[in-house]
Amino acid sequence: MTSIFTRHGGGLAQARAMFGEGGRPWLDLSTGINPVAWPGVDGLSPDWQSLPDPAHLAELEATAAAHFGVVPELCCAVPGSELALRLLGKLLDIPGAYLSPCYRTHSSAFAGGRALATFDVPPDEPLALLLANPNNPDGRIIAPEQLMEWHAMLVGKQGWLVVDEAFADATPANSIAQHVNAARHLIVLRSFGKFFGLAGVRLGFVLAPPAIIEALRGLLGEWPLSAAALAIGIAAYNDKGWIVETREALPRRAGRLDALLRESGLQPMGGCPHFRLIECENADAMFVNLAQKGILTRPFDYNPRWLRLGVPAREADVVRLIGALCDG
Amino acid sequence: MTSIFTRHGGGLAQARAMFGEGGRPWLDLSTGINPVAWPGVDGLSPDWQSLPDPAHLAELEATAAAHFGVVPELCCAVPGSELALRLLGKLLDIPGAYLSPCYRTHSSAFAGGRALATFDVPPDEPLALLLANPNNPDGRIIAPEQLMEWHAMLVGKQGWLVVDEAFADATPANSIAQHVNAARHLIVLRSFGKFFGLAGVRLGFVLAPPAIIEALRGLLGEWPLSAAALAIGIAAYNDKGWIVETREALPRRAGRLDALLRESGLQPMGGCPHFRLIECENADAMFVNLAQKGILTRPFDYNPRWLRLGVPAREADVVRLIGALCDG
Repeated sequence: MTSIFTRHGGGLAQARAMFGEGGRPWLDLSTGINPVAWPGVDGLSPDWQSLPDPAHLAELEATAAAHFGVVPELCCAVPGSELALRLLGKLLDIPGAYLSPCYRTHSSAFAGGRALATFDVPPDEPLALLLANPNNPDGRIIAPEQLMEWHAMLVGKQGWLVVDEAFADATPANSIAQHVNAARHLIVLRSFGKFFGLAGVRLGFVLAPPAIIEALRGLLGEWPLSAAALAIGIAAYNDKGWIVETREALPRRAGRLDALLRESGLQPMGGCPHFRLIECENADAMFVNLAQKGILTRPFDYNPRWLRLGVPAREADVVRLIGALCDG
Repeated sequence: MTSIFTRHGGGLAQARAMFGEGGRPWLDLSTGINPVAWPGVDGLSPDWQSLPDPAHLAELEATAAAHFGVVPELCCAVPGSELALRLLGKLLDIPGAYLSPCYRTHSSAFAGGRALATFDVPPDEPLALLLANPNNPDGRIIAPEQLMEWHAMLVGKQGWLVVDEAFADATPANSIAQHVNAARHLIVLRSFGKFFGLAGVRLGFVLAPPAIIEALRGLLGEWPLSAAALAIGIAAYNDKGWIVETREALPRRAGRLDALLRESGLQPMGGCPHFRLIECENADAMFVNLAQKGILTRPFDYNPRWLRLGVPAREADVVRLIGALCDG
């Protein structure tokens, strides 16, 4: 019954059709997208008529690169980091491995990709090791020093380390973006929509050596992004005040959710302030219980005890979630 | 001096920086984008916060497929037909040939692509023949019967015919979209921005056999389009009244430009009502003359006698253009 919700989050329209409205507004906690979105969109007027100006693309890449801590030459804007990951799989064209559990896209981005629980044996062939940091869905954070050791193990056989930092904006100390350079076999992906709460924009970035950036631009062409993605991205990455506030607000809200989950006897997992993973006897039943109360969460077909909860925006939403969890 | 303008149209910001403002609004005729854009954009409110709903993507593809005359199963929406062409080059992975003259992207989409003046000898290897119909920049239109003959010549060696119908909406009788099916080696690309005058949206379509559509979706991922592209595309392709009016208005405006060009001793070339190509002794000098009068056109590095003129929206713009052309 819940199988359509175990593919990925974001199926609110389907949940409405299946569970109805129930008299209260739906609370969508099925993704890790920040529910308090960057508020500047309504003030922008994208030029939909012209081809996007290459100078605006360069400005977006320079602004975002400064936010990530790299030089602009190592930064390529893409229409969504998910699409970029699939293109990188084609471009690198070597066998892949991914750390399990992971995003669904990670398991299929590289041909013949195989799951690893950890990475402790140097490979005997060129290998692209793909992982998310912070990870999804368990929020695991791997220290940059560990990642650079893995990079050293991979590069000996002309392999690559590919780190998906889609959720890294809230915890920048864990990013290895600044380690990317022309000499390393290291690629970092960043996502705009999750931290800024605007997943409908479809904007991401690939940080990589210039040869990879050039090959990627060769696939993406002259106008990879819409006029709106350019205008919104430039303005949002320049809004330093909002970024600082949000880096403070996300962990504060996650901490409040943690406290109430623990009071209710649940043990939240993970170090990513966008979401928490909880274990329950029967996550499928819990998913249905919550959905019948108008709360959409994220179950997993590969682990029937897991339920991922996006961190709600407001105290009232946290209280409503805890009440529904305890009223199983 | 004009080399930055011979790469492709759309360099208005650079033209402003180089030639100044000149006291009159710039008239940008450097592209074939319809200057009378579909007017419904301001009435739409895209949901930027959520991940785009897969049901909206399916609705867009069904609506656009009906407009093209194919079943939805053969239609894949893409973030710009230029990006799609480059991905198809990777996916088909066979040598390419293109009919010259052509879009700049066409010459680089397939590895080892070579220019042909025409196509009259059956190839002795698998070949992807890529052409635009109507063509750009010369507006040449090739009859569907001729194209299907070429398809038959190509398919004998497992080759493909790839037709870029970016400018086909104004002259639907020349489209071969309805010839696409599961058994043929025929791919048609369509563009949203040129006919609807909204090139900043970055929206296009690939019409192809299901196996190609599936491989393309595998590269594009679950959310290839922004929330705005979905909302604008669905509403615009459903606006049948505007589409009928625009199919009448584009040739009418082109005919008026032709009449005044001929009165001035110039011979406009081409059958695409979005633009006209003219020949002059020194197109580079004519480009500069027009730019100094605030009119941006499109010169070509590979033919110093050619200048492409987008068809202006208003009679006053046509008169201004003719006056500037004659006042060389």
